[in-house]
Amino acid sequence: MGSQWLQGFETGSAGQRGLLGGKGANLAEMTRIGLPVPPGFTVTTDACRDYQSAGRKLPDGLWPQITQALQQLETQMGKRLGDDRDPLLVSVRSGAAVSMPGMMDTVLNLGLNRRSVAGLAERTNDPRFAWDCLRRFIQMFSHVVLGLEMHAFELMLGAARRRSGAANDAEIPVAALQQLVADYEAEVLAQTRAPFPEDPLHQLQAAVCAVFDSWANDRAVIYRQLHQISDSLGTAVNIQAMVFGNMGPTSGTGVAFTRDPVTGENKFYGEYLINAQGEDVVAGIRTPGKIADLAVEMPAAYAQLAATCQRLERHYGDMQDIEFTIENHKLYMLQCRSAKRPASAALRIAVDMANEGILTREQAVMRITPTEVEHSMHSRLADDVGGQLLATGQAASPGAASGRVVFDAETAVAWEKRGDQVVLVRPETTPDDLAGMIAARGFVTSRGGTTCHAAIVARGMGKPCVVGCDALQIDLIARTCQVGSITVREGDVISLDGGDGRIVRGDAPVLAPEPSTALATILLWADEFRTLRVRANADNPVDAAKARENGAEGIGLCRTEHMFGQGGHHPERMAAVQRMIAAETTQDRLTALDALRPMQEHDFVGIFRAMAGLPVTIRLLDPPLHEFLPTDDQIAEIAVRNPGHAEALRKRKGQLHETNPMLGFRGVRLGIVYPEIYEMQIAAILAAAATVAADGVTVLPEIMIPLVGDKSELVVMRNMVTSLAAQYADGVPYLIGTMIELPRAALVANELAEIAEFFSFGTNDLTQTTWGYSRDDAEGGFLGRYLGDKLLDHNPFVVLDRKGVGKLIEIAVERGRATRPQIKIGICGEHGGEPNSIAFCHGLAMQYVSCSPNRVPVARLAAAQAALAARGMAATGSTV
Amino acid sequence: MGSQWLQGFETGSAGQRGLLGGKGANLAEMTRIGLPVPPGFTVTTDACRDYQSAGRKLPDGLWPQITQALQQLETQMGKRLGDDRDPLLVSVRSGAAVSMPGMMDTVLNLGLNRRSVAGLAERTNDPRFAWDCLRRFIQMFSHVVLGLEMHAFELMLGAARRRSGAANDAEIPVAALQQLVADYEAEVLAQTRAPFPEDPLHQLQAAVCAVFDSWANDRAVIYRQLHQISDSLGTAVNIQAMVFGNMGPTSGTGVAFTRDPVTGENKFYGEYLINAQGEDVVAGIRTPGKIADLAVEMPAAYAQLAATCQRLERHYGDMQDIEFTIENHKLYMLQCRSAKRPASAALRIAVDMANEGILTREQAVMRITPTEVEHSMHSRLADDVGGQLLATGQAASPGAASGRVVFDAETAVAWEKRGDQVVLVRPETTPDDLAGMIAARGFVTSRGGTTCHAAIVARGMGKPCVVGCDALQIDLIARTCQVGSITVREGDVISLDGGDGRIVRGDAPVLAPEPSTALATILLWADEFRTLRVRANADNPVDAAKARENGAEGIGLCRTEHMFGQGGHHPERMAAVQRMIAAETTQDRLTALDALRPMQEHDFVGIFRAMAGLPVTIRLLDPPLHEFLPTDDQIAEIAVRNPGHAEALRKRKGQLHETNPMLGFRGVRLGIVYPEIYEMQIAAILAAAATVAADGVTVLPEIMIPLVGDKSELVVMRNMVTSLAAQYADGVPYLIGTMIELPRAALVANELAEIAEFFSFGTNDLTQTTWGYSRDDAEGGFLGRYLGDKLLDHNPFVVLDRKGVGKLIEIAVERGRATRPQIKIGICGEHGGEPNSIAFCHGLAMQYVSCSPNRVPVARLAAAQAALAARGMAATGSTV
Repeated sequence: MGSQWLQGFETGSAGQRGLLGGKGANLAEMTRIGLPVPPGFTVTTDACRDYQSAGRKLPDGLWPQITQALQQLETQMGKRLGDDRDPLLVSVRSGAAVSMPGMMDTVLNLGLNRRSVAGLAERTNDPRFAWDCLRRFIQMFSHVVLGLEMHAFELMLGAARRRSGAANDAEIPVAALQQLVADYEAEVLAQTRAPFPEDPLHQLQAAVCAVFDSWANDRAVIYRQLHQISDSLGTAVNIQAMVFGNMGPTSGTGVAFTRDPVTGENKFYGEYLINAQGEDVVAGIRTPGKIADLAVEMPAAYAQLAATCQRLERHYGDMQDIEFTIENHKLYMLQCRSAKRPASAALRIAVDMANEGILTREQAVMRITPTEVEHSMHSRLADDVGGQLLATGQAASPGAASGRVVFDAETAVAWEKRGDQVVLVRPETTPDDLAGMIAARGFVTSRGGTTCHAAIVARGMGKPCVVGCDALQIDLIARTCQVGSITVREGDVISLDGGDGRIVRGDAPVLAPEPSTALATILLWADEFRTLRVRANADNPVDAAKARENGAEGIGLCRTEHMFGQGGHHPERMAAVQRMIAAETTQDRLTALDALRPMQEHDFVGIFRAMAGLPVTIRLLDPPLHEFLPTDDQIAEIAVRNPGHAEALRKRKGQLHETNPMLGFRGVRLGIVYPEIYEMQIAAILAAAATVAADGVTVLPEIMIPLVGDKSELVVMRNMVTSLAAQYADGVPYLIGTMIELPRAALVANELAEIAEFFSFGTNDLTQTTWGYSRDDAEGGFLGRYLGDKLLDHNPFVVLDRKGVGKLIEIAVERGRATRPQIKIGICGEHGGEPNSIAFCHGLAMQYVSCSPNRVPVARLAAAQAALAARGMAATGSTV
Repeated sequence: MGSQWLQGFETGSAGQRGLLGGKGANLAEMTRIGLPVPPGFTVTTDACRDYQSAGRKLPDGLWPQITQALQQLETQMGKRLGDDRDPLLVSVRSGAAVSMPGMMDTVLNLGLNRRSVAGLAERTNDPRFAWDCLRRFIQMFSHVVLGLEMHAFELMLGAARRRSGAANDAEIPVAALQQLVADYEAEVLAQTRAPFPEDPLHQLQAAVCAVFDSWANDRAVIYRQLHQISDSLGTAVNIQAMVFGNMGPTSGTGVAFTRDPVTGENKFYGEYLINAQGEDVVAGIRTPGKIADLAVEMPAAYAQLAATCQRLERHYGDMQDIEFTIENHKLYMLQCRSAKRPASAALRIAVDMANEGILTREQAVMRITPTEVEHSMHSRLADDVGGQLLATGQAASPGAASGRVVFDAETAVAWEKRGDQVVLVRPETTPDDLAGMIAARGFVTSRGGTTCHAAIVARGMGKPCVVGCDALQIDLIARTCQVGSITVREGDVISLDGGDGRIVRGDAPVLAPEPSTALATILLWADEFRTLRVRANADNPVDAAKARENGAEGIGLCRTEHMFGQGGHHPERMAAVQRMIAAETTQDRLTALDALRPMQEHDFVGIFRAMAGLPVTIRLLDPPLHEFLPTDDQIAEIAVRNPGHAEALRKRKGQLHETNPMLGFRGVRLGIVYPEIYEMQIAAILAAAATVAADGVTVLPEIMIPLVGDKSELVVMRNMVTSLAAQYADGVPYLIGTMIELPRAALVANELAEIAEFFSFGTNDLTQTTWGYSRDDAEGGFLGRYLGDKLLDHNPFVVLDRKGVGKLIEIAVERGRATRPQIKIGICGEHGGEPNSIAFCHGLAMQYVSCSPNRVPVARLAAAQAALAARGMAATGSTV
């Protein structure tokens, strides 16, 4: 089988993520480079897979290997698990190859029981510490391994705190802890009808199985679905000698980031608790101290920690998120990993690291994900919210959102389904809330810090989040939250700004994102590396200018139907278009077209000026004519003023009705049957180009014929363009080309290229015809079922289908170039802004992709990454 | 240029049709094999093309070549054109490569004038003959070359006959002929304001130009359009020494066929006139004698003629149509060509010739055209319908029918039930009309082309159909149709001939198809040569039996939707289907399906029995469910009885509405979303197979999954079939396969073949998606324009588009075989019955084609011809 089930920390390295999981690999790596890591070993993901396929039981031979590794650990530590006088305690922690924060389980202080607790107390001379460990162990083991509800234990712990008058858990005296242990044991007995397991080896085996089982728990499965992580990866289990942050005031535990995790600023950042164990920080029960304070409290440990963190960052070439424990002033590293960060921080970090020499510019570009570029262009709330400010919490994930308040995940899901925008408000979130977090626009918590669950998930999802807003008094029973005298009820609208922590009543004004200099820098670097040009789809001068601002190098698709008044912008144009369509004679049609031409020409002039020096691809009229006709109700209104025209419209509507308009009378078919329409458009394009060129502006019009299926159609159109060019173009150069959006066009691309000077793949329609999917119908219909049942991995309208549609594109590119080696090739469907599809286009050495103006920055990055990937570089950005 | 302008008869051969035209090539061939052909030469089609491209004038250098060839002819004949004492006369006759009977012009007796007529009279000692020649020449030249109306000349000829008391032209005395010549000359002078041209060389040049010009006359252009003959072929001109059938009672002229041109019987057949020239026979002015009489009148000439004809038939290996002249007992051959013949005769001749050893069986099979097979199986209207012709539309499905006109399906059904024969007349038909179409004898539509719904259904049913007859103005309110001034009311009787498009008032005489043993023989021979199997598309036991009678070797497409009641056959099934569709829960759906299953199973049992021992491919439900729902009016009716069900139907109809149903929720998508529907169908198939197999009948069911685009769909279906097979199939072998009808299916055929044991190309849908043509919309819309403007050579729904759709088929075949070398491959679209497409399937070594039962004989022939063509044999049937 070649399965490897175990590996000690001292023999592994960071490259073994797949086998050891992220946590295990990084523990091995830190061990390897000499950092203070408590000894231990990893039970591998191989073992987990074999466990799963053995029907959730340890495969034969694994347990003896574990006990043997344990013996080595005992030898190394000079202690034995379960030893009554000096027991070895271990942590048992999950760790998958892909980070799944909080999704799986951990047991600390394992190995302790009523006998060894005395030995530990004696050995450390600290009975309170020993009983605290036992109390913690029983509580955690009961929850994680025995599957009991945490709630009862929390109630008993709270009661113990109150009875002993302790301000926090660390102040609970030893006697109260002993009573608490007895209470816990009674609870376990009551609930499981068995005493709490005292045998340390039994505890260990049960804990390993529990971690393996946690790979398949509901929240982990949902998380993996959300982030498209394979179920077959499995988790590793790390068994490590315990070190103790709860050994009194000389000990502590904390998490740290090598840079500010929210802004990305190069500033050591972290939180810690004195006399605590790791879960205390994460749970957000006590509010931790800022890492800078540790420099005061424990200067030596702090200095060692800071230096270690810097070393780790340089070692990994990335900002690190670490966990540490200080036991009697001695620093131990318990975990390191690349830190999650919001998009804006990711950009800043990548740019800074390149400037600091930690990364090359290529590496910096590969460090950013397309999703981060997208998220970095986040909105925020207006500064002045008119006295509606409710409270301010910690800014945990940037962006602004508004929505109805909901207080639990189920309500979030239900209300979102019925069409509401919702904001999830919780004391804190847990992995159980995940479905609700997916449904919500943003999250607010009254507890927790910027490293709490809600914050991490929000940053991963790119959703706004405010945490630790303790001014909010949330009443989950009454379903209200109180801020001073103000009561917010479930269903009330609030807004939040995850970039500055504000929570506002009502639907506050949202400001569009500000341009980020880090983003601009990354994109400039990306531009150096990419070979694909990026154009935008824009139909008017405003969009064209915006596209150019975002770095578009031309227009890849200018849809002339919008100039025909489609979309309701220009009712006077629409009226002219309707007259044109209702015309009974060519002469009437020409008269209507004469009215439209100056309007189109005016638009083209504006677009050409906005794109001075850059190519502009203009698609002649594409949609079926019936799309321009008024509704039956509108015709009834027209009939009041002009019964003749209404009758003509009604008649025409009947004639133009089609069973399958997608496959009907549209595109070049219109230009063949009503040549005067295309003649008008071509004349307007060429005349506008001549006008702008006369001002000394470089104009590069590219006339694109849609829905071509046969060369004969292009011949007719080329002849039309040629003869109009003689009349209107006045020496302005232009290209004529075609969309490839029908399978047949791809298959006869060699013939089309005899005429076409460029190809532009209309992948929306090409996907519809190749799959036989009507997008309008499929996405609301069977396609959802297909995606849900995993018959398809991706919606082919979102991610270009390489096997089918991509194969046709390959055929077309190859055949087109065989006829005309220099043919200009691009893509203008929505896939033009989707990174996977952009990589495909790069692979075919297309000249450009064209996407919506907002997607241009994403496409610039994706194009660079495709080029760098082709040089063998891997993308290193966070996948979550 | 390589143009060759002239060639003498003595140097050419039959293989030079393209250059010499059919007449010239055959004159050369007859000369070559030593038959008595008057000497002459051919001005070639090269010369004609150069004449046309020079702007209708003789290209430089041609005339000197003609005069030089003329001098050689003069030397050979010992006479000179225009010689006053012994003039050479010539005929100037057109002759294109493709036979265009009567379309172009001929001038006889050229070279005569007022001076030479005396020499001819003296030389022949027959003044009457000489003046008859001059009279004929002036008349013919004036009409053909000078463009004068024939009418005035006919009037003068008739007057001369009456004045001289002659029974026919041959009896007009010489003086009267002399007066007639003078009258003719005066008429020419009056009409052309110029005297009749006397110069023989001038005459010759004008005649050559006139023949060339006749290539472009209106009737020739229309004829070529009708028969798809290229305008660029051009005609040749044959200049030949005259021989004279009008030299008194020892002379004559005639036409003959080597076999009976109507029945094909091997019997010498022909007609002749004594003392006449060729045009007299064709013109039908005198009633000619039967050729047998010639044996009595001129035994020697007859014997020579009969022997020559037999020799020609053997020489050409085909029945010949010849023209001859006897001049003073001496036989001259003036023309031979393969004779046109009706389909029944063509079959008889081919079989007879093979039995006589003139043809091999292979040659006999190549001699028959698919159209002849088709026509031979249908009745037709008599040619003479006594002035009752109403209009002519497009011939869409051959056969003749008469019946009372009805304007809707309900009336058709009702009247048929009460015993009337009805003809359904509609603007166009839809699936809603199916019940009416079943009831009617034939259909007429005013819209649509030969591939519209009515045409397809008609051919499937084998009923006569005429479509696109736009001369019919149908008024569905008044229940009349108007053709010009004639009004046809509902209930009036009309007749139609779907083989030629005629629509006739009243009950026109119908000629029954003669059951042809010759057809059976040809098809048996064809079966020996073909490698493609021929199956039929059939949905019920009756069609299956009919298909088998026609030679089908299995069913290639059994559409289960017809068993669901589509088409109105089974209202009780339709009701169950509607309950199934309207079901709100899976349980309700299962209950409705339980009602349908025994019905489907019963149908399958019948089909399996009918096709005992042969494979039956059954396609699971394909059409979108909304096609089964009632119309809004029908729902309103249902509401009266069952408001709840009506409401459910209405709601479901709204849910199932689609923008583009062709690309929507149909095919395997239904089977994925509602597995219980396919489960019911699969269970019914397998249970039926087991039932029939239990009787010892060999059953070969092939379960076909429609509209597959991805392997995952097939995996789901294969699993479904496998698990049902365990329950129902009871050891009966079966195959599972898929239709290839989406471009993506073709592109991923290698993956599909991992599951599919057979592929069947659904070329109707594959054509729709590859071209982006909605058939329902395109054929009544822009596609007509495309075909009219010659943007497309063929309607791709009729003739398989090899470049696009064919390319995808090639890809699919190659990829499918790469995965599964023995995969069974066939085609079941309508192209399966179209000869060009069948040849394509043969080229890809498919296992079978499947077509409508009526097309099976055509497909058998076409498959054999494809196989023989691949061996290098050419089809030799008549193209017209």
